[in-house]
Amino acid sequence: MKEFNLKTPNLAEGEAEQKRQEILAYFNRTFDLDDKLYETLKDEKAFYMRADQLRHPLIFYYGHTSCFYVNKLVLAGLLPAHINPVFESMFAIGVDEMSWDDLNDKNYNWPSVDEVRNYRNTVKSTIIKLIKELPLRLPIEWKNPFWPIIMGIEHQNIHIETSSVLIRQLPVELLQNASFNAICDSDEQPVQNELITIEGTEMQLGKPHHHHLYGWDLEYGNFEEQVQDFKASKYLVSNAEFLAFVEDQGYHNEKWWTEEGWSWRTYKKAEHPLFWEKDAESYQLRLMTSIVPMKWSFPVEINYLEAKAFCNWKSAKTGKKLRLPTEAEWYRLVNHCQVQDATEWETAPGNINLEHFTSPCPVNQFSFGDFFDVIGNVWQWTESPITGYPGFKVHPLYDDFSTPTFDGKHNLIKGGSWISTGNEATLHARYAFRRHFYQHAGFRYVEAEHEPNIRIDSYETDEEVAISCEENYGDDYLGIKKYPLQLVEILEKQIKNPSEKKLLDLNCNTGRLAFEASTIFKEITAIDASARFIRPAIELQKNGLLRYVIQDEGDLQLFKDVVLNDLKLNKNTNRIQFMQDDAMKLKERYRNFDAVVAFNLLEELQNPSVFLNEIHKRINQDGIFILGSTYQWKEAITPKENWLGGFKKYGEPVKSMEGINDILSTQFTLVSTPFDLKHIARKSSRNFEVMHSEVSIWRKK
Amino acid sequence: MKEFNLKTPNLAEGEAEQKRQEILAYFNRTFDLDDKLYETLKDEKAFYMRADQLRHPLIFYYGHTSCFYVNKLVLAGLLPAHINPVFESMFAIGVDEMSWDDLNDKNYNWPSVDEVRNYRNTVKSTIIKLIKELPLRLPIEWKNPFWPIIMGIEHQNIHIETSSVLIRQLPVELLQNASFNAICDSDEQPVQNELITIEGTEMQLGKPHHHHLYGWDLEYGNFEEQVQDFKASKYLVSNAEFLAFVEDQGYHNEKWWTEEGWSWRTYKKAEHPLFWEKDAESYQLRLMTSIVPMKWSFPVEINYLEAKAFCNWKSAKTGKKLRLPTEAEWYRLVNHCQVQDATEWETAPGNINLEHFTSPCPVNQFSFGDFFDVIGNVWQWTESPITGYPGFKVHPLYDDFSTPTFDGKHNLIKGGSWISTGNEATLHARYAFRRHFYQHAGFRYVEAEHEPNIRIDSYETDEEVAISCEENYGDDYLGIKKYPLQLVEILEKQIKNPSEKKLLDLNCNTGRLAFEASTIFKEITAIDASARFIRPAIELQKNGLLRYVIQDEGDLQLFKDVVLNDLKLNKNTNRIQFMQDDAMKLKERYRNFDAVVAFNLLEELQNPSVFLNEIHKRINQDGIFILGSTYQWKEAITPKENWLGGFKKYGEPVKSMEGINDILSTQFTLVSTPFDLKHIARKSSRNFEVMHSEVSIWRKK
Repeated sequence: MKEFNLKTPNLAEGEAEQKRQEILAYFNRTFDLDDKLYETLKDEKAFYMRADQLRHPLIFYYGHTSCFYVNKLVLAGLLPAHINPVFESMFAIGVDEMSWDDLNDKNYNWPSVDEVRNYRNTVKSTIIKLIKELPLRLPIEWKNPFWPIIMGIEHQNIHIETSSVLIRQLPVELLQNASFNAICDSDEQPVQNELITIEGTEMQLGKPHHHHLYGWDLEYGNFEEQVQDFKASKYLVSNAEFLAFVEDQGYHNEKWWTEEGWSWRTYKKAEHPLFWEKDAESYQLRLMTSIVPMKWSFPVEINYLEAKAFCNWKSAKTGKKLRLPTEAEWYRLVNHCQVQDATEWETAPGNINLEHFTSPCPVNQFSFGDFFDVIGNVWQWTESPITGYPGFKVHPLYDDFSTPTFDGKHNLIKGGSWISTGNEATLHARYAFRRHFYQHAGFRYVEAEHEPNIRIDSYETDEEVAISCEENYGDDYLGIKKYPLQLVEILEKQIKNPSEKKLLDLNCNTGRLAFEASTIFKEITAIDASARFIRPAIELQKNGLLRYVIQDEGDLQLFKDVVLNDLKLNKNTNRIQFMQDDAMKLKERYRNFDAVVAFNLLEELQNPSVFLNEIHKRINQDGIFILGSTYQWKEAITPKENWLGGFKKYGEPVKSMEGINDILSTQFTLVSTPFDLKHIARKSSRNFEVMHSEVSIWRKK
Repeated sequence: MKEFNLKTPNLAEGEAEQKRQEILAYFNRTFDLDDKLYETLKDEKAFYMRADQLRHPLIFYYGHTSCFYVNKLVLAGLLPAHINPVFESMFAIGVDEMSWDDLNDKNYNWPSVDEVRNYRNTVKSTIIKLIKELPLRLPIEWKNPFWPIIMGIEHQNIHIETSSVLIRQLPVELLQNASFNAICDSDEQPVQNELITIEGTEMQLGKPHHHHLYGWDLEYGNFEEQVQDFKASKYLVSNAEFLAFVEDQGYHNEKWWTEEGWSWRTYKKAEHPLFWEKDAESYQLRLMTSIVPMKWSFPVEINYLEAKAFCNWKSAKTGKKLRLPTEAEWYRLVNHCQVQDATEWETAPGNINLEHFTSPCPVNQFSFGDFFDVIGNVWQWTESPITGYPGFKVHPLYDDFSTPTFDGKHNLIKGGSWISTGNEATLHARYAFRRHFYQHAGFRYVEAEHEPNIRIDSYETDEEVAISCEENYGDDYLGIKKYPLQLVEILEKQIKNPSEKKLLDLNCNTGRLAFEASTIFKEITAIDASARFIRPAIELQKNGLLRYVIQDEGDLQLFKDVVLNDLKLNKNTNRIQFMQDDAMKLKERYRNFDAVVAFNLLEELQNPSVFLNEIHKRINQDGIFILGSTYQWKEAITPKENWLGGFKKYGEPVKSMEGINDILSTQFTLVSTPFDLKHIARKSSRNFEVMHSEVSIWRKK
């Protein structure tokens, strides 16, 4: 099927009108391939069968890839209106994200195949017209009107592959090879796998925003990871190699499985890989449209959970620490083997892009130097849950492509398969699935002494905490500077030689003040009463990255990434000790500070007087105490008899500052007149809370 | 007791050091009079008896007047600290504001009389020192450090009178005349009362802020009231005149009483005025420290409820419409009789300021031309519930002197009594008590065809409504202009010849936009779904005055007055029709508008599409529709299926403006790109909500 040539185009270089023709050809070839895929359904009823109880029938995907173009182009303002609103609703949302024990009880009234085919043709003509008429200027980057067109094409390429997996789960009698007839029929004598050493090095992951190939939003960024020495298996694990696990009762021995894996195994009652079909004593292999005698030299195709169980079993058998590679280790392997990216090859160096077979092939057929199948044949599961690289930004035209998978439950697959085309066949491709999902995916194992570096970096969705994150690290609104930056300016004015001084930050919240102070103070103890609020600060200290979700309009959300490095706050984070503690019952060891900040703390205390009466014990002579509060006393937190002010006493109004002054003036001198510090909490894109905290600065007598 | 000369000093004119001596003398005389009052308690146990179950015993008031000086001077920053914090708490708050059926179960551990006397002496020396040492600059106005000193003196004068009423309710055997021995012992043959006509005129009430005499905050302002012709009784009602009501079973006949009055009568089982004592067949009269045979020519002393019942009874008997005078009618009487103010007389023209008697005297003793006792003898109940004049401002040093009484339940008494001194004896004095309370107070009745003009002007305390009032009429915060003013600017730009045009203001809230528009449009219909919110607008339209309470810090509050006249919005209020209605079900008659404003309405509707689909029917061709919304959809108000945006549809984010555009563009043309309008709601002194409403302007096709 080499005629399809589904290599994703270079979007940076070339001449505009020629690029237009190239894109048009790419669109046509992709659309045609998609058409051809559905020609394998020889019986129309195959369109309406559920190949997988957790997925829509193929009729959905038949409409989905076309409808996607329309929805994105309407959203981008490039199409004036919907073409078929009913279809564009019905075919809009897949159900790929369900857990394996979800049940889908929805009833759909699917249209006929002809109706959908007509719709596809209408969409195709519309897109062709657009490609011909839209103004085209190179380079094509995120905001270029051609971006959503390439997005539609790449989306179609993805579904060509995922639909081929669904077809592989339909009854073969309803299917035919059609154009997908380049099935590899060789089956070499299975080879003995072996482990080959790869030297560790510092890896740079992620591609720059000006990269010349289309990328999904989660491919961009720059992430450095130190890869240590490891050994990797020369071949992907073959059906033959996996058989030993099956025959050793691997599917019946809980101890090889992760908790998630065993739970899945038990629910599914799996006995062997999904595409193995047991026929009396022998196994057969289910390919996309046919069943063939078991190809023992082909890579085994399993989900992550099975691959992981195999590694655990094999570790026990061999006494080696075996596991799947991480994403960085896979890239290290790519570098080691000097694998070329799709646009650079004349002919694919592996079983990929439909350039060689319409099926997998033996694991020892495509060599990349010492190793085989570094790319192509089947995808390779990794240990890495997917997450954006630091600084990740959502593409506004497809704002839920990536973020729903940043949950620690979706693992990356790398390398592509025989049917991976377009972006899928590029080295930067980053796809991930729930660990129980099936794709054309197998694995290579690695041996390493060290534990894999697993980052999850899920989004902080706790609304109050996320608001605090934005208050600390987000944008400025209404021209009001973020309050931790205002506080650090006060500290800079008040504290001489801070590099020799110790700071105590009480009510440190999500930590911005502590990070700012770490650039000037010798030591910072940052305390918050709430684990919820301090967690993002600790995340930032540990990984330099913080993610959170804020409210846009209605239910819509915005995803935010904070990279400590970008804020130039990453150099001295070891000077900070973040602790969860109650400011009213601080441990004895918090003593001898040269500066103490307690911002908006009083109103969070059950008895603020207790705190104010004790704080002097923790501050050195001549040390500075910076107190700020909105005095928003809430009876649920601070019983009225403990308020510092905001009530009448002897019939006269008492302001909170008077109550504070009564307590503090015995041990402190007021440095200057109290003043108001404005700060702002963003509740949504259209709603902000502005607070005026009164700040007073005290010097310990 | 003329030696006391308790005329309140001229605070505007004179030489500073001489004024200091004058104030010192005024302070000393007042303090001495207060001392002398307590000398009437010949037995110390009289200090601890409850003269009235709803009031503290006299020991409280003995401490209270001194403690008041200290508390106010500490609050004003003129005293560095409290003198006796225990006393200054215990003696701070009286219980004068209770309803007649409240019960006071508090236990107090009162100090000894000697302890309190010593405390009074300490306070007295402290104040004398202050008066001698404080810098004094004339004129003495609100912010002058001498103001709280005069305030303390006038407060003491008030309590000299109110304590004398309490003493009047103690057992006589515990009392002696002491210095209060100028009891009037004449008792003329009772005179026949008669009604004398007074011509109506426009009255100016209230005194200016630069007035030369001390005033309580509620005396200031400028209020015009049209007084119509009326007749007033020549004399105050005497005991003799009132006896006819008692003998006619007035206390047993519900029909003469207001509901409140009858309820009080029944609870108290009153049979005759409180200070009448029935002894077998005859009545005796209780004076301050003694009981004497009934003085039939003395004015009857009753509460408002009894006075009102008498008027109703007498109206029925005479066929005349009799009632009490209003405050304005009392001032009309003062003008008619050309009564001089306290500072202008050599000798008091009436039985007032202790210049003549230490008791009431016959109602025909002090003539003011046609009438008697226009001031002095006993206070005169009026029909007017007390309220501040428009533009009323709370004095910050005594923020609860006035506002707790602006509730429609406290009626003004005017004219002063034999023991009214200082400010009490001035014509601008405005004191008010609950209608069931006793003071040295009687009444004069008037005959008038018209109903009295009763303003209540109580403070809007509904927190949400008050926030809206401040948003509409209050201060600007954070440099953001009030949203109705921003909207009126848009209207001015969009509408040509507005003086010929009709405006519909939907979600008019507390009405500022409607009032602003009334200066330029021909006709305004202003609709709100909530009676709570539209009520202040209607108040403003009717009375030109709006009062509301906003939150300061904690429980503290700020009182705000809006005067339509001050905003220059009072000329065309008749062009506005305020209506309560549901924008989704507007009545048919709301049609043919040239401009419609719907600001922050959509988010308040159960189904905003229904509204948007219908609104074109109410707008003339080429008419303008101005729509603004924060899109803060709340499921409790707008079910999610009715949201206009802020959700995903076909998997794509839909902004509310898209939903609006889909509906409106069939009947309207968008005039310009939608833009954001910032507005701000003040939640408290330290907490503000800033919202960004998207505004779009549409022209009817």
